[in-house]
Amino acid sequence: MKSQEIKFNNKTTNYSVLVGKNIFNILPKRIEKLCPKTKKVALVFDNKVPFKFKKMLKSKLKSYNLIFLKFEASEKNKSIKSVNYILNKLLAKKFNRSDLIIAIGGGVTGDVVGFVASIFKRGINFINLPTTLLAQVDSAIGGKTGINSSFGKNLIGAFYQPKMVLIDTIFLNSLPKREIVCGYAEILKHAIIKDSKFFSWLKKNTNFILSKNYSRIIYAIKKSCQIKMDFVSKDVNERGLRMMLNFGHTFAHAIEVENNYSKKITHGEAVLSGIILATRLSVIKKICKLSVLQEIEEIYVKNNLNYTFKKFSDAKKIINLIPFLKNDKKNNDEKINFILLKKIGKTTKPGSFKISIDELRKKSKIIAQY
Amino acid sequence: MKSQEIKFNNKTTNYSVLVGKNIFNILPKRIEKLCPKTKKVALVFDNKVPFKFKKMLKSKLKSYNLIFLKFEASEKNKSIKSVNYILNKLLAKKFNRSDLIIAIGGGVTGDVVGFVASIFKRGINFINLPTTLLAQVDSAIGGKTGINSSFGKNLIGAFYQPKMVLIDTIFLNSLPKREIVCGYAEILKHAIIKDSKFFSWLKKNTNFILSKNYSRIIYAIKKSCQIKMDFVSKDVNERGLRMMLNFGHTFAHAIEVENNYSKKITHGEAVLSGIILATRLSVIKKICKLSVLQEIEEIYVKNNLNYTFKKFSDAKKIINLIPFLKNDKKNNDEKINFILLKKIGKTTKPGSFKISIDELRKKSKIIAQY
Repeated sequence: MKSQEIKFNNKTTNYSVLVGKNIFNILPKRIEKLCPKTKKVALVFDNKVPFKFKKMLKSKLKSYNLIFLKFEASEKNKSIKSVNYILNKLLAKKFNRSDLIIAIGGGVTGDVVGFVASIFKRGINFINLPTTLLAQVDSAIGGKTGINSSFGKNLIGAFYQPKMVLIDTIFLNSLPKREIVCGYAEILKHAIIKDSKFFSWLKKNTNFILSKNYSRIIYAIKKSCQIKMDFVSKDVNERGLRMMLNFGHTFAHAIEVENNYSKKITHGEAVLSGIILATRLSVIKKICKLSVLQEIEEIYVKNNLNYTFKKFSDAKKIINLIPFLKNDKKNNDEKINFILLKKIGKTTKPGSFKISIDELRKKSKIIAQY
Repeated sequence: MKSQEIKFNNKTTNYSVLVGKNIFNILPKRIEKLCPKTKKVALVFDNKVPFKFKKMLKSKLKSYNLIFLKFEASEKNKSIKSVNYILNKLLAKKFNRSDLIIAIGGGVTGDVVGFVASIFKRGINFINLPTTLLAQVDSAIGGKTGINSSFGKNLIGAFYQPKMVLIDTIFLNSLPKREIVCGYAEILKHAIIKDSKFFSWLKKNTNFILSKNYSRIIYAIKKSCQIKMDFVSKDVNERGLRMMLNFGHTFAHAIEVENNYSKKITHGEAVLSGIILATRLSVIKKICKLSVLQEIEEIYVKNNLNYTFKKFSDAKKIINLIPFLKNDKKNNDEKINFILLKKIGKTTKPGSFKISIDELRKKSKIIAQY
């Protein structure tokens, strides 16, 4: 099938995101163009990626000296140990910086492999093939790479841009519904913070996305990547504007930490909860109209996603999150920074809204039951 | 004393190198300007730096929340273990990316601490206070950071620019002569590859530099930094031009590896040998006039540095280096890339001259005894 290309061009980076279904054919030609000196290619596969894709990539890239590495993607393995393992495999095979590493997997795989690429001989060519909807609409875009530490998630890492991101929706075939919801949460967030037209489109098309209608998914991925890129290109190293992408995520992170990152709540579900809680706070603080919150909640109700915020319908549930709100690495002081919503397509500026823990505690009941 | 400022401005970076004697006073004001959000400062000291400097920096930076970390700088400790140690100290103290790390030490310290800075929460503020002449004229400039692996030196790392480099020659007081020679080797290389006027100046002033005449040393540091910056700014990620800085280093690395990086030969001594061997190869290949080689050798003889090339006056010594020439990570194929000299101030272009191992072996006698 034909792919659609989104070019990402700014002062420091220049690469394309290609989106489509069954578009692997593009890969060899693009590699030849982007990495003309490459002789060796390391393919790092998330264990969960079906074997047929490994076979297919092997045949497409047969003109290169290939090595295959398996990676068991998990938060636990998003570690310095995994980084060392991959680095040593590459060093043993005498890769040099004109060679290439390709990540084939979800967000964790992309983050770990991208980080390896950034520190291997001060930077080797890197291509990302995200295989989950979440990675395709969010984590594969923007150049954030990294690993966890015993002190917390993503504390060690680098900003490193790939040579190309190839988003093939064929990978979504085997993805469970809950994983689709995960990606959808970030799609919705992108629409809410930046694009009211896209939000209107989502009102009508969310059910199609959740049931894997590929042409709609491709459209949503494309819009989503464009919105994220727009923020990233204005703020590559995340010093300002890019923080708007954290809308809904201050609560979401707290929810995940409180649940010890267990599978009871996925990242996407936490983000869906976070979007509602942050929008309620926006309404309570009179920054946003009530009708906006109702519009958003309607999408949830229509598509059976309201379980994500019903979990937080009592004040205690909100209060429980507070201790976990404090350690967000993006906060530089004691008050808590929130990105709030002004209207569909527009948020507050990063750093412009802060709330004390005390006030948040006092407002917990109204947030829970709004 | 007054400092001299060299501004380093290009598409991706913007920082200054300050050079002078006893210029620590500048530090607090500059930090305030460059890192206005910094609350915590980690000072990572090379063990060999005299205690009085620790005391002095402590008093100058007393308005910050300070932590002091000792680092026993050595090739062995230029390791992932040291990186983890520093990362964990910073995480335990809840540093965030608007805080600051300062390296106070030689090249190894700067490389390790710079690498930590590059991967701590995807990049924390970094200031480098190089304390050896070698670091001041070479390694502190250009943003190369990194550590060793069991597979070789500097194989893991990143390009990461500091917020500022403060070069205080007061640190050189306690530096042994052999360490001064180390830095001098890179100064000489910079002059040879780029600046015939500076080379003429060095002819007259080498003895003053080697005997620590501070005004001349400051001039040589400034010139040297400017030349290196000029190459770096044209090629931040070392894809092309910057490789000219490797003049003399292909042989030098082989000499160091053959000697197992023992203290029998310092990096600077290896570079001084490498400069002569590469210039001889340039003359033999009729790329450079014999008189140029003689001019360079004359500086060595006048300043008792000729022991560095006398070591290689027999063919066997050259042949012994060949196996260690091959694994240079900058080479992308089987032949060996050399940067050769055309005349003082001008080298061959990177990649334009390659020589087979076979030819090098055949020419070993003439190189040794030229």
